[in-house]
Amino acid sequence: MGMVGGGPGSFIGLVHFNAAMLDGQINMVCGAFSSDPEKSKVTGESYFLPAERVYDSYQEMIESEKALPEGERMDFLCIATPNHVHFGPAKMALENGFHVVSDKPLTFTTAEAKELVKLVEQTGLVFAVTHAYTGYPLVKEAREMIKNGELGKIRKVVSEYPQGWLSEPIERENQTQASWRTDPKRSGKSGCMGDIGTHALHLAEYVSGLKVTQLCADLSTLVEGRPLDDDGNVLLRFNNGARGVLYASQISAGEENGLRIRVYGEKGGLDWVQAEPNRMEIKWMDRPMEIKKPGNAYLSPIAQYNCRMPAGHPEGLIEAFGNIYRNVATCIQCRLEGVEPPTEALDFPDVYDGLRGMEFIDKLVESSEAEKWVTFNH
Amino acid sequence: MGMVGGGPGSFIGLVHFNAAMLDGQINMVCGAFSSDPEKSKVTGESYFLPAERVYDSYQEMIESEKALPEGERMDFLCIATPNHVHFGPAKMALENGFHVVSDKPLTFTTAEAKELVKLVEQTGLVFAVTHAYTGYPLVKEAREMIKNGELGKIRKVVSEYPQGWLSEPIERENQTQASWRTDPKRSGKSGCMGDIGTHALHLAEYVSGLKVTQLCADLSTLVEGRPLDDDGNVLLRFNNGARGVLYASQISAGEENGLRIRVYGEKGGLDWVQAEPNRMEIKWMDRPMEIKKPGNAYLSPIAQYNCRMPAGHPEGLIEAFGNIYRNVATCIQCRLEGVEPPTEALDFPDVYDGLRGMEFIDKLVESSEAEKWVTFNH
Amino acid sequence: MGMVGGGPGSFIGLVHFNAAMLDGQINMVCGAFSSDPEKSKVTGESYFLPAERVYDSYQEMIESEKALPEGERMDFLCIATPNHVHFGPAKMALENGFHVVSDKPLTFTTAEAKELVKLVEQTGLVFAVTHAYTGYPLVKEAREMIKNGELGKIRKVVSEYPQGWLSEPIERENQTQASWRTDPKRSGKSGCMGDIGTHALHLAEYVSGLKVTQLCADLSTLVEGRPLDDDGNVLLRFNNGARGVLYASQISAGEENGLRIRVYGEKGGLDWVQAEPNRMEIKWMDRPMEIKKPGNAYLSPIAQYNCRMPAGHPEGLIEAFGNIYRNVATCIQCRLEGVEPPTEALDFPDVYDGLRGMEFIDKLVESSEAEKWVTFNH
Amino acid sequence: MGMVGGGPGSFIGLVHFNAAMLDGQINMVCGAFSSDPEKSKVTGESYFLPAERVYDSYQEMIESEKALPEGERMDFLCIATPNHVHFGPAKMALENGFHVVSDKPLTFTTAEAKELVKLVEQTGLVFAVTHAYTGYPLVKEAREMIKNGELGKIRKVVSEYPQGWLSEPIERENQTQASWRTDPKRSGKSGCMGDIGTHALHLAEYVSGLKVTQLCADLSTLVEGRPLDDDGNVLLRFNNGARGVLYASQISAGEENGLRIRVYGEKGGLDWVQAEPNRMEIKWMDRPMEIKKPGNAYLSPIAQYNCRMPAGHPEGLIEAFGNIYRNVATCIQCRLEGVEPPTEALDFPDVYDGLRGMEFIDKLVESSEAEKWVTFNH
Repeated sequence: MGMVGGGPGSFIGLVHFNAAMLDGQINMVCGAFSSDPEKSKVTGESYFLPAERVYDSYQEMIESEKALPEGERMDFLCIATPNHVHFGPAKMALENGFHVVSDKPLTFTTAEAKELVKLVEQTGLVFAVTHAYTGYPLVKEAREMIKNGELGKIRKVVSEYPQGWLSEPIERENQTQASWRTDPKRSGKSGCMGDIGTHALHLAEYVSGLKVTQLCADLSTLVEGRPLDDDGNVLLRFNNGARGVLYASQISAGEENGLRIRVYGEKGGLDWVQAEPNRMEIKWMDRPMEIKKPGNAYLSPIAQYNCRMPAGHPEGLIEAFGNIYRNVATCIQCRLEGVEPPTEALDFPDVYDGLRGMEFIDKLVESSEAEKWVTFNH
Repeated sequence: MGMVGGGPGSFIGLVHFNAAMLDGQINMVCGAFSSDPEKSKVTGESYFLPAERVYDSYQEMIESEKALPEGERMDFLCIATPNHVHFGPAKMALENGFHVVSDKPLTFTTAEAKELVKLVEQTGLVFAVTHAYTGYPLVKEAREMIKNGELGKIRKVVSEYPQGWLSEPIERENQTQASWRTDPKRSGKSGCMGDIGTHALHLAEYVSGLKVTQLCADLSTLVEGRPLDDDGNVLLRFNNGARGVLYASQISAGEENGLRIRVYGEKGGLDWVQAEPNRMEIKWMDRPMEIKKPGNAYLSPIAQYNCRMPAGHPEGLIEAFGNIYRNVATCIQCRLEGVEPPTEALDFPDVYDGLRGMEFIDKLVESSEAEKWVTFNH
Repeated sequence: MGMVGGGPGSFIGLVHFNAAMLDGQINMVCGAFSSDPEKSKVTGESYFLPAERVYDSYQEMIESEKALPEGERMDFLCIATPNHVHFGPAKMALENGFHVVSDKPLTFTTAEAKELVKLVEQTGLVFAVTHAYTGYPLVKEAREMIKNGELGKIRKVVSEYPQGWLSEPIERENQTQASWRTDPKRSGKSGCMGDIGTHALHLAEYVSGLKVTQLCADLSTLVEGRPLDDDGNVLLRFNNGARGVLYASQISAGEENGLRIRVYGEKGGLDWVQAEPNRMEIKWMDRPMEIKKPGNAYLSPIAQYNCRMPAGHPEGLIEAFGNIYRNVATCIQCRLEGVEPPTEALDFPDVYDGLRGMEFIDKLVESSEAEKWVTFNH
Repeated sequence: MGMVGGGPGSFIGLVHFNAAMLDGQINMVCGAFSSDPEKSKVTGESYFLPAERVYDSYQEMIESEKALPEGERMDFLCIATPNHVHFGPAKMALENGFHVVSDKPLTFTTAEAKELVKLVEQTGLVFAVTHAYTGYPLVKEAREMIKNGELGKIRKVVSEYPQGWLSEPIERENQTQASWRTDPKRSGKSGCMGDIGTHALHLAEYVSGLKVTQLCADLSTLVEGRPLDDDGNVLLRFNNGARGVLYASQISAGEENGLRIRVYGEKGGLDWVQAEPNRMEIKWMDRPMEIKKPGNAYLSPIAQYNCRMPAGHPEGLIEAFGNIYRNVATCIQCRLEGVEPPTEALDFPDVYDGLRGMEFIDKLVESSEAEKWVTFNH
């Protein structure tokens, strides 16, 4: 793979790298790590890349790589840039025949997202969006249990994502992560909800198998002077009549990365917390609560497919992230070999999930500004 | 004390009794436990009451007790009836000079609640409403920490109360608890939100020291055919600009009694869960999370005042409930002795809290029916 | 009941009182709360006792109460004194026809314990020893599951009881609790193990249904200058071949009251922690871990018999303690009525359990001093 | 690196691979994955290795690789074989100038372990033993806190390692993992204690900074007919006078991989559980318990050095394992560059730790057979 973004100070670039390396199926062969060529070069060296494959820009990288012989050039592009630089590289990669793994949100605007959807449909290339939290084995298990009707008809979904790291205006001190995330020119029309609210939506819809059809949002800026929302609370209604709550926050001081999903059906509920990803509570009406854990034979095949370790040997976010990369690698390799990939390998967030996230942001902002319920088609 | 309600099948009557007995300051001397005199008699015997002080109705009880000499008659009335029978006994007790401890919600209608407020103001009698969850020592600690500014200005409040016991239409099988709670004639205009949503509001306002000023609610009936809401989700705005979410549910299958409060300020947050009441998480921006526990010298005086046991010896809901009774008993005794009660003893939910709960129900229903934000004055 | 001990500064006296009061079946009618008559008087007043039934000594109390007419005199004696004053009141009470509820350890010496056993056998009186931790509903459930073979043959038992409150030599500052517990003249031949190690043994044998037959102990004094052990670690072998570990400590700094029991059989294991008594983990070989909680219909009848509250409404140590008192009250009342008590009411620690604890202390000290394995008959 | 062992059915081979790959500093260039060349070949293909570098035996691999030009040959050997095949490859690798990363226990006999120590001292090569649990950042933090005196003088250590996967005699069904671990010819003189008891010792000594000097062990076989211990309980005394308990078990049915360490000093205690590695409890005498978590600026530099992710993004065992590999890679690279490695990179279990584990096994067996305390020199 080749990487765009992920230069000095980037947290997510390194995560993409670790996740891609983990299973030994992928090598990083080139990169354009920064808009500053000097920084790109330094990062390239830290990854042991040959100087000639560390590029000054993604344009140069895509062109140069395309010129290399098949088998030598990169197979796919990993996009680990701030939001406003997702679309450009994604579009150019697709147009030049490269598969793509992009960070989320998919693009800066919904129009761009729709353009990418079209390009993917035209080219048939593999396109993954790293809503990585749905890569955890127990999230797969949750989805599978609900799909199999174990909880009965779903009635309530609570998806929450509190963080606290933007409780102070650290963007004014040029903290790398904070400064672009709170800047409408680089982040888009929403701050907190675009950054992590979209994860909470993806998790809710992925696990429940439902779609949000109406929502009422209250987006707020609690740190004075910040131009984008740093907190958002949303009422949800789903396509089967279920009700829900979704909230995301970056001013919940003291919270680290508290993504959590709870889903309740007629027969029982489930509860999964990202910060302790190796346990999931299953609550029943008439029998003791159960705790499921990875690496056990009682899990569904799709959950087991996403475990690397035996029971009691914790896996973390890099492994969940790695499950997306492993699936992408498997899909690409199957194409090279002209065979169908196994069903399990097709289970990763794609360009449609990316578009869904963009439309969600639009609807949140619309609802919040109007202070009323809005319809969210799908 | 004398008790109205609490006959066979009542859960809350027994809790009131245990809580009142716990500290040896209170004796139950009489009761009108059921509208069915036979049932009342049986219950009276189980409490070792003399037959002549087990009454057929609260009216008879209040009249007969008033006729007894001072020192012999009951000091206060405990009301443990379904919602529609709160007002009558409360009013009559006040009018006849008896203090009152009433279960919540205060009354059936807001008009009744206002009448009780007036009566309390006129008579000067002690009136407690058993929002018992705020009786836990760590809830006191939470309130105190926030009052002292330890978390800085409050920005976000999340109050949730999931239960699952009404996931099936058990009211149709005449389950005692379920049948009146889902019946508009006995429960009032809201089911779930009146029953437990009011606890979630009281906890949120008590702990944060803030008042909700605007809300947008989505009340739903997920079990088909049920005439009252069994689930409700609410967006909140507070008088200092803080934002929040409140939800209560009785169809969150598998949940037992999941009341939980999280409050975040500029400097940190706190998190308390009723089902594990003897620990509270305090989360900080720049140092490790702390876990506070009852019975420790590091707690505030008001929290310690509400502990009975040394550290590591768990207390439960009966003890929290008992803290209200202990305070009421102390206040009544101080009056008898003509002295001022200690400040700590004044810390219990009163008739104003009861009225607040009634008005909250009104606003929730108004907002939900209109599908829009409403103002909630205070 | 009448109480001996429990004067100012006593923690356990108040716990006995709260527990006895809780269910409204017991009244405290008299007491000899301290060897200092002035202190006794003050305590008596705090309990609203008439002056004439607050005695200067237990001897005076037993004699005077015996002289009162039946129905007026106390029914049983509650012993809440330091260890060296358990035997005297217990013996005299039995000899004068009073039932007894005694704190643990039963006596100061094993010889005294054996004498009490004889007296109980001769008189047929009710005699309870407050190993209160086995009064929790989930401890009952654990015992029942094992008795029913749900875990298969038991192979391993781990019983631990870390506390930290004696990490500093607070006995030198005359802290009430610490000074007698670290004094061989008042506590007996063991400090930590006598005080809490006996709880750990009782819990292990009660839950597993097994008996320890061999042990190897290492008792230590970690705080310099303290005359009794403040930490003890023990290897265990049980009568069915199972192996185990038991440890107790009062210098595990930062621990509050960490009693915990784990039992493993051929098919699964269970894990219960006193500080969070309202959940028990059940771990299986081939299916998800289960969490059992009080107040649920899936519990065994004996566990449900010991619950007061519906699911999700936490009960604490006072309630567990209260279960002993409720059983004792039921047994005494059944005798008064000339009927057999229900089986469930017979389930409380008795004089034989008390003797077992005393013999355990002897064996621990013997093994530790000799630095070798010893046989522990039963 | 080159790998010996890790063929089909090996769990630990894959963990070594994932851990080595993770940070992109290491490539696997060759392997001798099985004593069955056919299996070795299949495994080699799964790792995308060229056929000519998949060898039939470790002897062939070491000879062939040595013959390759520097820079092309493997830099170090990873040993992922059953216990009885650790010594041979390790010795031959050292003798031929290859660094080594070996699984534990170091060897089959203590004599072999001593021989390896000598060879390492003679050759000066890097030698790591994968006691990987001490690679977690919070374990580093625990060690650092104690080293800095934050807990005061250490008084008590409790190290436990319950597993349940050998509760049934699955070795008789030729389960790969079970069959060699319960076979004295492949596992050595101890089963459970050699396999996981050594981890518990390493963790205890690493974190506390103390050495065990006396021990009394009770090793047992609870599954009938099994030739090696499957459970062991040990009393410990440390070089500074501290006391302790260590136990390991593979018949604690339902336990997955329950390694846990608790250490108590004069001022406080700490508690870390491997299955939830991203939190550590710090318990204090006089202030609230603290929970430390990875990725936070409040951690010591050595703990931060071992974190890859920001707070709230869980890391697992592969990452802990990877910390050993990263350190080894750094040390080897520094040698190639002729510079001193950073102090942090020297922090991995080495050949002396491996020898210590072997001697521990000897002492456990000696003590258990004699049923008495033995001295454990260091």
